Amino acid sequence: MQMIKQKVGARVRELRNQKGLSQEKLALAADIDRTYIASVESGKRNISIVNLEKLIIALDTSFAEFFEGM
Amino acid sequence: MQMIKQKVGARVRELRNQKGLSQEKLALAADIDRTYIASVESGKRNISIVNLEKLIIALDTSFAEFFEGM
Repeated sequence: MQMIKQKVGARVRELRNQKGLSQEKLALAADIDRTYIASVESGKRNISIVNLEKLIIALDTSFAEFFEGM
Repeated sequence: MQMIKQKVGARVRELRNQKGLSQEKLALAADIDRTYIASVESGKRNISIVNLEKLIIALDTSFAEFFEGM
């Protein structure tokens, strides 16, 4: 059941790398602490939808695109 | 920014009604408290992805289908 945390983390990392953003830059854009982003990307964080929305906006994507294929 | 809570709530209610499930039945299937589901559906709850995954599985859908168009 906890796989979703790893899948979301991998997707954040994938989109961040595609956009050529460092964790620091994404953290600044999303107004979220860099260490929080590191824990999301490593699949350790049970992120809330409001924080996920901040990341999705900062990554210039949508919930639909983010969860494509999940 | 907080609109996502209302959108997710409306989508849970829409899918639940489509499947002809009461909040009690969905709560049982998802192993989540009924009052929690009521607060999600009314847009008050900043749900985590692990709890959202429980609802998505209980609604027999996927993250991709759940967030279609969002």
